[in-house]
Amino acid sequence: MTSALSLNTVTVKEKWGLAQCIDGCARHGIPGISPWRDVLQAMGLQAAAKQIRDAGLTVTGLCRGGMFPAPDAAGRAAAIEDNRRAIAEAHALGAQCLVMVCGGLPPGSKDLPGARAMVRDGLAAILPEARDAGVTIALEPLHPMTCADRSVLSTLGQALDLCDELGAGTGVAVDVYHVWWDPDVAHQMARAGTRIAGFHACDWLVPTTDLVFDRGMPGDGVIDIPALRAMAEGAGYRGFTEIELLSRRWWAEDPDTVLQIMKDRHARFC
Amino acid sequence: MTSALSLNTVTVKEKWGLAQCIDGCARHGIPGISPWRDVLQAMGLQAAAKQIRDAGLTVTGLCRGGMFPAPDAAGRAAAIEDNRRAIAEAHALGAQCLVMVCGGLPPGSKDLPGARAMVRDGLAAILPEARDAGVTIALEPLHPMTCADRSVLSTLGQALDLCDELGAGTGVAVDVYHVWWDPDVAHQMARAGTRIAGFHACDWLVPTTDLVFDRGMPGDGVIDIPALRAMAEGAGYRGFTEIELLSRRWWAEDPDTVLQIMKDRHARFC
Repeated sequence: MTSALSLNTVTVKEKWGLAQCIDGCARHGIPGISPWRDVLQAMGLQAAAKQIRDAGLTVTGLCRGGMFPAPDAAGRAAAIEDNRRAIAEAHALGAQCLVMVCGGLPPGSKDLPGARAMVRDGLAAILPEARDAGVTIALEPLHPMTCADRSVLSTLGQALDLCDELGAGTGVAVDVYHVWWDPDVAHQMARAGTRIAGFHACDWLVPTTDLVFDRGMPGDGVIDIPALRAMAEGAGYRGFTEIELLSRRWWAEDPDTVLQIMKDRHARFC
Repeated sequence: MTSALSLNTVTVKEKWGLAQCIDGCARHGIPGISPWRDVLQAMGLQAAAKQIRDAGLTVTGLCRGGMFPAPDAAGRAAAIEDNRRAIAEAHALGAQCLVMVCGGLPPGSKDLPGARAMVRDGLAAILPEARDAGVTIALEPLHPMTCADRSVLSTLGQALDLCDELGAGTGVAVDVYHVWWDPDVAHQMARAGTRIAGFHACDWLVPTTDLVFDRGMPGDGVIDIPALRAMAEGAGYRGFTEIELLSRRWWAEDPDTVLQIMKDRHARFC
């Protein structure tokens, strides 16, 4: 059976704000939504929570917390404060998780172990609030090509090691785009078990012309999405498949067309 | 002490053929060279071997064998034949290793385990000749962003698993560009031990604007090259540092300037 579909709002971010995304999901019969914080804050938290509730949508995640590494203590403290606000927002939305894009190297730094320690310390600092709020912190390993500037958390194994260390209230967000290449992915998915808090899909295009903004629509690339979804289900995951595209090509399209194609591709390729 | 330096010819490929690279190394006091097969074949194997010998250069590697996956048996057999010629060339040059870029998914395929099996089978097929010729097969894990179209061999751990399986005559080529992000790299370097057959350096630029042709000169990016070199030396490696840049920016420069800067950066950042 096909999994339930969720729209990550970044997929149509150039043309639709959050209110339009919520309406769009309702109109296209898409039962889940995962907002980014910029569109959430632009709409206003209470108004968004109400409209999402009224539309009957499941909030599969809030994107995103993280970005912990910073050159100085003030920067790191500011990141932790911002993550506390993100936890409150995720709680207000009833989001299934708060997705963590952990952050890259601080500007000018080559100290990768140091940046990883900043991530761990930042997560440890916010976890008590997250647990109190009942918000699952979903660590999202990002593709290694983002290591310098977006995420020093690069593999599912590394994310699960961090979950082991941090304990209750943590899980992982698995995005096929970030993990498909990993020779260890089947093993780590099984290891993840019930800690899989989200499953994101898009596709790897050949060639890929940009390190950030050239993700493909499912079916247009080389990722064996059903195989990865089967691994997640084998581990016990029964949740939504969230489609999240950062793509200049799809941003230029009419969002209603994007949602139509997304639904079709989800049915055929996820 | 600074390691010995080797020029990988791709670094100046737009302006110099192999004869000019050999002369350039001699002129700049660079003791090692690692030719690509296209410039080698353009110059002629015997002429190249003689000029390199006369210049007293060490051939730190021949780039490259591999590219095993293909859509059909004929394509896979042709790849194996080509790798046999590469072994003969490496032997004639007295190269310290034949570097393997193993290949990506066959066109139209999403079967990553299948492509990995083709790589393993191709390597197993050529190993007897490599052993007879005394040519070390250096498996080079490539950055995961190349998984679809260049190398389904993505991590040092995966390469060493393959070495374990294939046995004598195999080793690894460690390029800092491909492994720097890996949370498991220190462990895998130690595991590699004497199987490290080559050590390549360049740098990861922020931002990186192309998935293939935007490598940085050591010192211009975020890779902690000395830390990685120390891991290799801790494992017992005492060989050359080969500088290998695929970079539109550096290809546009005068090659004598590139070699000058390369020497300076090698002394300061490797």
